[in-house]
Amino acid sequence: MKLEDNIRKVIPYVAGEQPKDKNIIKINTNECPYPPAPGVQRLIEGLSYADLRLYPDPNVSALTEALAKRYGVDSDRVFVGVGSDDVLNVAFVTYFNSGKPILFPDVTYSFYDVWADLYGIPYKTVPLKDDWSLDVDAFCNAGEVGGIIFPNPNAPTGLAAGLSDIEKIVKAHPECVVIVDEAYVDFGAESALSLIDKYENLVVVQTFSKSRAMAGLRVGYAISNRKLIKYLEDVKFSINSYTMNRPSIELGVEAVRDEEYFRSILKRIIATREKTKNALRELGFSFPDSSANFIFASHDRIPASGIFEYLKSKGIYVRYWNKPRINNCLRITIGTDEQMDKFIETLKEMPGMQ
Amino acid sequence: MKLEDNIRKVIPYVAGEQPKDKNIIKINTNECPYPPAPGVQRLIEGLSYADLRLYPDPNVSALTEALAKRYGVDSDRVFVGVGSDDVLNVAFVTYFNSGKPILFPDVTYSFYDVWADLYGIPYKTVPLKDDWSLDVDAFCNAGEVGGIIFPNPNAPTGLAAGLSDIEKIVKAHPECVVIVDEAYVDFGAESALSLIDKYENLVVVQTFSKSRAMAGLRVGYAISNRKLIKYLEDVKFSINSYTMNRPSIELGVEAVRDEEYFRSILKRIIATREKTKNALRELGFSFPDSSANFIFASHDRIPASGIFEYLKSKGIYVRYWNKPRINNCLRITIGTDEQMDKFIETLKEMPGMQ
Repeated sequence: MKLEDNIRKVIPYVAGEQPKDKNIIKINTNECPYPPAPGVQRLIEGLSYADLRLYPDPNVSALTEALAKRYGVDSDRVFVGVGSDDVLNVAFVTYFNSGKPILFPDVTYSFYDVWADLYGIPYKTVPLKDDWSLDVDAFCNAGEVGGIIFPNPNAPTGLAAGLSDIEKIVKAHPECVVIVDEAYVDFGAESALSLIDKYENLVVVQTFSKSRAMAGLRVGYAISNRKLIKYLEDVKFSINSYTMNRPSIELGVEAVRDEEYFRSILKRIIATREKTKNALRELGFSFPDSSANFIFASHDRIPASGIFEYLKSKGIYVRYWNKPRINNCLRITIGTDEQMDKFIETLKEMPGMQ
Repeated sequence: MKLEDNIRKVIPYVAGEQPKDKNIIKINTNECPYPPAPGVQRLIEGLSYADLRLYPDPNVSALTEALAKRYGVDSDRVFVGVGSDDVLNVAFVTYFNSGKPILFPDVTYSFYDVWADLYGIPYKTVPLKDDWSLDVDAFCNAGEVGGIIFPNPNAPTGLAAGLSDIEKIVKAHPECVVIVDEAYVDFGAESALSLIDKYENLVVVQTFSKSRAMAGLRVGYAISNRKLIKYLEDVKFSINSYTMNRPSIELGVEAVRDEEYFRSILKRIIATREKTKNALRELGFSFPDSSANFIFASHDRIPASGIFEYLKSKGIYVRYWNKPRINNCLRITIGTDEQMDKFIETLKEMPGMQ
């Protein structure tokens, strides 16, 4: 049928399940188990009802300036979007426009190939090494490419690359933009932000959805040099002038400002993660040594799919992908100590586990 | 330089100025002069601070269902986005994928050509007739096209097309999707929603930014048949799973629910508009008979650019485009009675006006 022929058909990204039942232990989408900075509560009460009739600031100045101050850069080097997914989407459209293939790891955030397919951007995947680490040499020796993107720490492995390895990749590809997707960086990896003054092809993307406990507000950002940020802004303003609504701008500022609270929840999550690693090891799980707020674990005897179904039947949601190379792994978000204790206890009760 | 060659460079849409000075009479971006439904205030107080850590519902079910109920359709026939700009952006990517030119009026919402350029969608503009009305025959007789989009009422003219004219266009082009962009429909035009059961190629887009007084919240929506909405959802989920944040979903529901308040502010704005039309006529302005919340006026002696600058110097912002065919027109948003009185008074004091 004619009408249908003219329509773009795609296979969309499938996000983790968002059950509405509040009793479920939801450790499947890498949310923060603690609430946002306490000052946010006060700001909610102060949200102006009447001002909702007015368009928000299209330049998101208040939030951009708060981020610029926090990361010690000028505000024209910061770009804010509706979660890092929005930032990355605009970045794909803007930076990966050469027609040459872009590179990303074979096991990585599963949105990269969806964006590439949507915009007709050719891509090649670079297999992770057997120990799940980034194959730095393969990235460096790939010849001329159209762009590079990888998360650090990588998702869903949780494994971080060192700063010197990241620098090698950025340095090896001056012909294209290299995006380091640092959604999980605050949980224990080194940020590539320290390299943005040194290389003109580096873009660092971070998010409020994990370490700043604001997945529900949808805020992400990119930091780079003035020129690359300007190109990103131009494309953004060609898509939607007003992406950030008033609540996200007003509440987001406080999440950046409260450094003390930010540090305190990171400390708690990291402590819980290390405790969970030990408990999982004792149960026969192995995993790359995560620097993120999740653990990517497989059991030495029981298939991941079975554990996934068992946990779900007990009201505990973790993430499982039936995909090559990772179909025997579970991605387990770090929740509160109490949630992780319950998770470990429930695992212990699984038939065949002990 | 190599790096630059690989980057997409665009000329972005330029939104109306958003001055931060609250004393300015801001009648330049078609916002509603009245606050949103009063129930929204109560809901702001009830926004859960702690839940901000959690991703929002990716399917935006609460808001989608509220809209479906209000417009008497099933909820799988409603698509919600970050303002109608987001909805239209996704619609361009989804529906206008044939490689054949799409059609829109020459004088219209100035984002259409920006999206077309961004995605490499070829387009032809169909000149409005001398009386600013839509050239229905030209649309109907254009042969096979890749898609059609026009606002009704048209922007920035404010002139509405009748339902039978819209039906002619939809009927003449079964080969492509026809999008009726009804951002301003509530102020006095007939909605094409009454045709969506009859034609499988019709998509109607509306927004909370004008008649629902929520430009600051960023909510827009499309209503069509199940199949076309599904394609839109698939592309949306290939761009960003979580576009609508928790505040927009929670507060948006109330704006749809309070029908009485909705009707009451429409009535007030329409009354103010008709009063403003009379006052402008007396001052020597002419304009198409607007069915929107703005008037697109030119003066019989004084160039629009001069009036624009004069008003700005007096703290009154209206919209002016230095573009072919419309560079002698001002788009004046309908504010409160008080604001419009002040606007008319200020015009009267302009040297040469009387």
